[in-house]
Amino acid sequence: MPTIRRRLLAVSLALPLVFKATARADEGMWMPSQLPDIARQMKAAGFKGDPRDLAELARPPMNAIVKVGGASGAFVSNEGLVLTNHHVAFGVVQYNSGKQSDGSERDLIRDGYIAADRGAELPANPDYRVLVTTGFDRVTDRILAEAKGQQGRAYFDAVDRATKAVVAECEREPGTRCSVANMYYGTDFYRVRQLELRDVRLVYAPPNDIGNYGGEVDNFVWPRHTGDFTLLRAYVGKDGKPADYSPDNVAYVPPAHLQVSTANLKEGDYAMLAGYPGTTFRHRMASEFANQVEWQLPSRVALYQRMVDVIEATAAKDEAVRVSYANQVRSLKNSLKRAQGELDGLRRSNAVVVRRDDETAMYAWLDQQSDVVATKADIAAAQAVLDKGVAMRGRDQLLGVIVSQTQLLRSAVSLQRLAFERAKPDAEREGGYQQRDEALVSGQLRQVQRRYAMDVEKALLAELVGQYQALPAAQHVPEFDAVFGSTPAQLKAKLDALYSGTKLGAENERLAAMQADRAALSNSKDTLLQAAATLLPALLRLEDESKASNGELLRLRPAYMRALIGYRKSQGRAVYPDANSTLRVSYGRVSAMDPRDGVRYRPLTTVQGIVEKHTGSEPFNAPQPLLAAIAKGDFGTTAEPSLKTQTVDFLTNLDTTGGNSGSAVMDAHGKLIGLNFDSNWEAVSASWMFDPRYKRAIHVDMRYLRWLLAKVYPAPHLLREMQLPAE
Amino acid sequence: MPTIRRRLLAVSLALPLVFKATARADEGMWMPSQLPDIARQMKAAGFKGDPRDLAELARPPMNAIVKVGGASGAFVSNEGLVLTNHHVAFGVVQYNSGKQSDGSERDLIRDGYIAADRGAELPANPDYRVLVTTGFDRVTDRILAEAKGQQGRAYFDAVDRATKAVVAECEREPGTRCSVANMYYGTDFYRVRQLELRDVRLVYAPPNDIGNYGGEVDNFVWPRHTGDFTLLRAYVGKDGKPADYSPDNVAYVPPAHLQVSTANLKEGDYAMLAGYPGTTFRHRMASEFANQVEWQLPSRVALYQRMVDVIEATAAKDEAVRVSYANQVRSLKNSLKRAQGELDGLRRSNAVVVRRDDETAMYAWLDQQSDVVATKADIAAAQAVLDKGVAMRGRDQLLGVIVSQTQLLRSAVSLQRLAFERAKPDAEREGGYQQRDEALVSGQLRQVQRRYAMDVEKALLAELVGQYQALPAAQHVPEFDAVFGSTPAQLKAKLDALYSGTKLGAENERLAAMQADRAALSNSKDTLLQAAATLLPALLRLEDESKASNGELLRLRPAYMRALIGYRKSQGRAVYPDANSTLRVSYGRVSAMDPRDGVRYRPLTTVQGIVEKHTGSEPFNAPQPLLAAIAKGDFGTTAEPSLKTQTVDFLTNLDTTGGNSGSAVMDAHGKLIGLNFDSNWEAVSASWMFDPRYKRAIHVDMRYLRWLLAKVYPAPHLLREMQLPAE
Repeated sequence: MPTIRRRLLAVSLALPLVFKATARADEGMWMPSQLPDIARQMKAAGFKGDPRDLAELARPPMNAIVKVGGASGAFVSNEGLVLTNHHVAFGVVQYNSGKQSDGSERDLIRDGYIAADRGAELPANPDYRVLVTTGFDRVTDRILAEAKGQQGRAYFDAVDRATKAVVAECEREPGTRCSVANMYYGTDFYRVRQLELRDVRLVYAPPNDIGNYGGEVDNFVWPRHTGDFTLLRAYVGKDGKPADYSPDNVAYVPPAHLQVSTANLKEGDYAMLAGYPGTTFRHRMASEFANQVEWQLPSRVALYQRMVDVIEATAAKDEAVRVSYANQVRSLKNSLKRAQGELDGLRRSNAVVVRRDDETAMYAWLDQQSDVVATKADIAAAQAVLDKGVAMRGRDQLLGVIVSQTQLLRSAVSLQRLAFERAKPDAEREGGYQQRDEALVSGQLRQVQRRYAMDVEKALLAELVGQYQALPAAQHVPEFDAVFGSTPAQLKAKLDALYSGTKLGAENERLAAMQADRAALSNSKDTLLQAAATLLPALLRLEDESKASNGELLRLRPAYMRALIGYRKSQGRAVYPDANSTLRVSYGRVSAMDPRDGVRYRPLTTVQGIVEKHTGSEPFNAPQPLLAAIAKGDFGTTAEPSLKTQTVDFLTNLDTTGGNSGSAVMDAHGKLIGLNFDSNWEAVSASWMFDPRYKRAIHVDMRYLRWLLAKVYPAPHLLREMQLPAE
Repeated sequence: MPTIRRRLLAVSLALPLVFKATARADEGMWMPSQLPDIARQMKAAGFKGDPRDLAELARPPMNAIVKVGGASGAFVSNEGLVLTNHHVAFGVVQYNSGKQSDGSERDLIRDGYIAADRGAELPANPDYRVLVTTGFDRVTDRILAEAKGQQGRAYFDAVDRATKAVVAECEREPGTRCSVANMYYGTDFYRVRQLELRDVRLVYAPPNDIGNYGGEVDNFVWPRHTGDFTLLRAYVGKDGKPADYSPDNVAYVPPAHLQVSTANLKEGDYAMLAGYPGTTFRHRMASEFANQVEWQLPSRVALYQRMVDVIEATAAKDEAVRVSYANQVRSLKNSLKRAQGELDGLRRSNAVVVRRDDETAMYAWLDQQSDVVATKADIAAAQAVLDKGVAMRGRDQLLGVIVSQTQLLRSAVSLQRLAFERAKPDAEREGGYQQRDEALVSGQLRQVQRRYAMDVEKALLAELVGQYQALPAAQHVPEFDAVFGSTPAQLKAKLDALYSGTKLGAENERLAAMQADRAALSNSKDTLLQAAATLLPALLRLEDESKASNGELLRLRPAYMRALIGYRKSQGRAVYPDANSTLRVSYGRVSAMDPRDGVRYRPLTTVQGIVEKHTGSEPFNAPQPLLAAIAKGDFGTTAEPSLKTQTVDFLTNLDTTGGNSGSAVMDAHGKLIGLNFDSNWEAVSASWMFDPRYKRAIHVDMRYLRWLLAKVYPAPHLLREMQLPAE
């Protein structure tokens, strides 16, 4: 692909400000094309290759990096073997478990799986994909052509239309999946072109008690002892092109693959990682940091805790009700815990002050530049949009959970919305209400049966709408006041009437309503459907306002980003775009961590920890063959000589976020040393701020994989295929 | 005291077997008199003094070590200043808080206290004591004179009588408190003579948020950040003799005091500790280890959990009942947690196998010795006594909690027992039922009001007696069967009758019954008093059997201990007696710890940890002056140079157990470097087995004390008195 170099040149020219700037050590989710710009720092960190090679998507090692199952992975053989996390391939393992066509049962989650040969490799669920990024082209001018001169909703819609057109054109090439990535918050747009491999098969999965050892208890926990990996294989048609599953398909020959390392590993060793990080907020404005830390997270924690309390108190009397709400309570508690973790982390890092001081310094620098009037006007306008959101944040938070955390009310709103959207041509319907989504909607309507109890929903609404009623008048929405009244006493009477006058508690009524047309639903005598009909125009209006705000921010934030990039350049630093599920590279080191005073986390864990954690029951139920192999102590060439035992996982300071699951971790020579699968609890706040004291990433040591394949659940043919020693 | 040397000679001669034997590194709670025997190991560990000096109770530093408030402490000035833990002196701080005679209120727990001068030092509660051990003399022959030739209960009573006589004779000297210590399980007896200082005053206490920083949450936790110390002063009459509190008293001039160190501290430094460890079981027989790990601890965990479940389920419906039982539930959960911790630790250390293998080797050695017939017969007889206990352990455990964990039933039994004991001369009554105990009994009878609910007590008894009913017939007690029936159905009817026919639920009825004579109580129509009258003979019989067994073990265990001491000598190792609240010394090092794979605990904590843990609410509510001083960073000569900050606590591998609270931790030169106040959770099982991987002790760094006195809550006059730098 000789055009790659030209494309990258375009990318570079698009970002003249970052040229030759330097990065803060070890922070950064870099676009591959940026790496030559930070070559000096990468070399200083220990990288032995040429960063220009990493910038080329068509060259090793980047052409071995794939997107798989929504996360990351890499080719590890020249016959299409893909390595990713057990949890990323979990759906594939699950799909192949249960009752078989011959009537037998198998549980590959519990037992794991080793395909003895190519014929035994098991097809993944048909929607499972391996995507290889083959093109990354700047399309900013085209995306913004129509948007220029527009504002608000019109700007948003213009970008949306142009994006859809670019994608449609790009996807005309068969076997290609395309998207448009927004870099630096609307500053630049890139067309991402990916080869879409649709025949993926399960080759090797360890038992769940290895692949998910520690389960939820150890989630976000270091020290970790999980063998979170699975091997898949990508297949193509005999013509070498992407194809749906067919027994006649042949193994895909990737342009390159990563070689698993056979070297040892120690604290301080260079490491780098390539994958598809999801979303970060590092370059948000200081006021957004303050809003997040001072209001969004604490109020979410308080609100979710209140919801948990209300549900648990109301459900306490009735075991069946408790069971119905167990999922919702667990999910609220998880969100609460995560919000609390993020809050704790941002406070620990003093994020509000750090970001504010940085922004203040940036503005001081900006004031020294020429021609900044337009820039400053745009930033001020962006701030005004954000301020409008802050003024309504109490309302937006509460209305959000009033709809999303109820069962019957949500069903009623969803039914009215579906009827409303059905009046449009399918392509113009809102996402989630298109024809292809209707199965999902009916599934949700069915699920209500197992998740609803009238007393709980009324108690929850009494609490949530009660909080909404206590908001200042400026945040009130007439339609909500009409449906729920304006005082707690009115609310109680309204809720009694709403829930005694509805039949939506019955599944057949809900499913029947899904078939009704808009007029019938609008005129329904059902009290909740009536309420939803009243609320719908308000919800659509709020949605429209939100899109208008987003359009304005898309238009205005680039001024802020350009100022930031310019200021960083003046500091000698480059700026990576916030993560957006595109291919990124980060580099750093194998790193210990001091999580708190008096405690040091060592950077490598060993099989001793598996034995220590083993309780014999989930999630610490190490399989007997594993325990026996550990007791035997036969670790061969995969042992770490300095520890005289087998390592399991290791810790680096690499910059990651959700989506980096399955990212290949490479050494200074590009050899594969680890597979990223989690980060530590202290790093939950890293989506907003990278704090080098606490940000770590957790990887499976490839020597643990090699040992499992050599000695515990042997797959000598796969070791041979990966050109690895037999033991 | 020139006689001390002679006394110690006697001690040494009493233990010829341990002469010149060597100890396993760092394990051991040594009698001071044993230290010369392990001089080589102490020197090897880094001790710079002469162990013979430590063996002399009348010489520094041992004559500076005191027993205070039931735990340990040390003189730290030549004017009677005593350093102990904040939690050991907590009663003194509490006694001086609350409403004052002038009508004002003060809260020294919250605020701490600094006596500006001698006149401002506040008297402790009148029963608070500082005890200085002045004599330690072997009295084995006298204690066992009458016991020789006796067995069982008679042996027990003979030892008890001789002990009381020795104590009475010794205490004829005014200001003296005496006791007889049983060493090596009845092998040797020592008369301990202590100077009893009765006028103790509060000099300096940090606020509770320093002295108990971390509270229950951090109990048993490392890393720790607690300033758990308080300074008291001992006073005597103008004649220099112990006296009750009087404003005319003068500061006691101790024969010696410890000098607080001004040196730095690092991992690996020699450390030793002197104090009064309570009880250990290290030299129990292998079968007792097995019983503890395989039955006592797991069945206690299961039983207590079941009791918690029953109480919580029954109390769930009624908030008032929940409050009544909150204390009992908390106490059961604490005991359960501790039992589980001990069990986990003993399993982790493989204690049953380790002890059994050791004992097997000991028996093999014993078989090679001459004249071991009598020894082996005694050991076999001791084992038979233990086996009898094991055969009845289910019964004993259940009857124990049936009486101790109920409120009304326990009251009824207690009332019948008191009436029974009152028929004897006061001196012959059982402990707990003498005249001096009656206030305590009536207090308990009053307390029932706030801790009882009929439904809960009946549910608890249904569970506990139900479990008892399911025991094999051989473990049944006729009187219990008569009172509760033999089947669950009978039990239910009996419980209904027992609790509907009693008036003991009323406080005035209980207190009136306390005044009734034995005949009246025996003939009472009250159903629970009747039941207790039926049960009492059984309880007395079981108590008598238990004393007889204890007498037999007292007679027989010395054979086992002599065999163990002989075997250890053959291994070149000395044997310390299990802890029994007498003065002991242990030595070791400032030590990091690897609690589990991938985690290292550093041996020193710093003020940074106080800030990290601070939440602004109990138990992590660091006082503002402390936070301000930390932020200021002005640590002067008290900072640890290698860490460039102020240390707080440190960790050693010293051998400790409950009672070692407040023990002085000294360096290689006998200077005071720390104050022991806790051990780590992993060491809970150390009362049975010392596992060098996990056994650690937690101390306040004296540099933290110096910094607090110099910079945070200043007391320059006390620093001067302790001859310490002003900052």
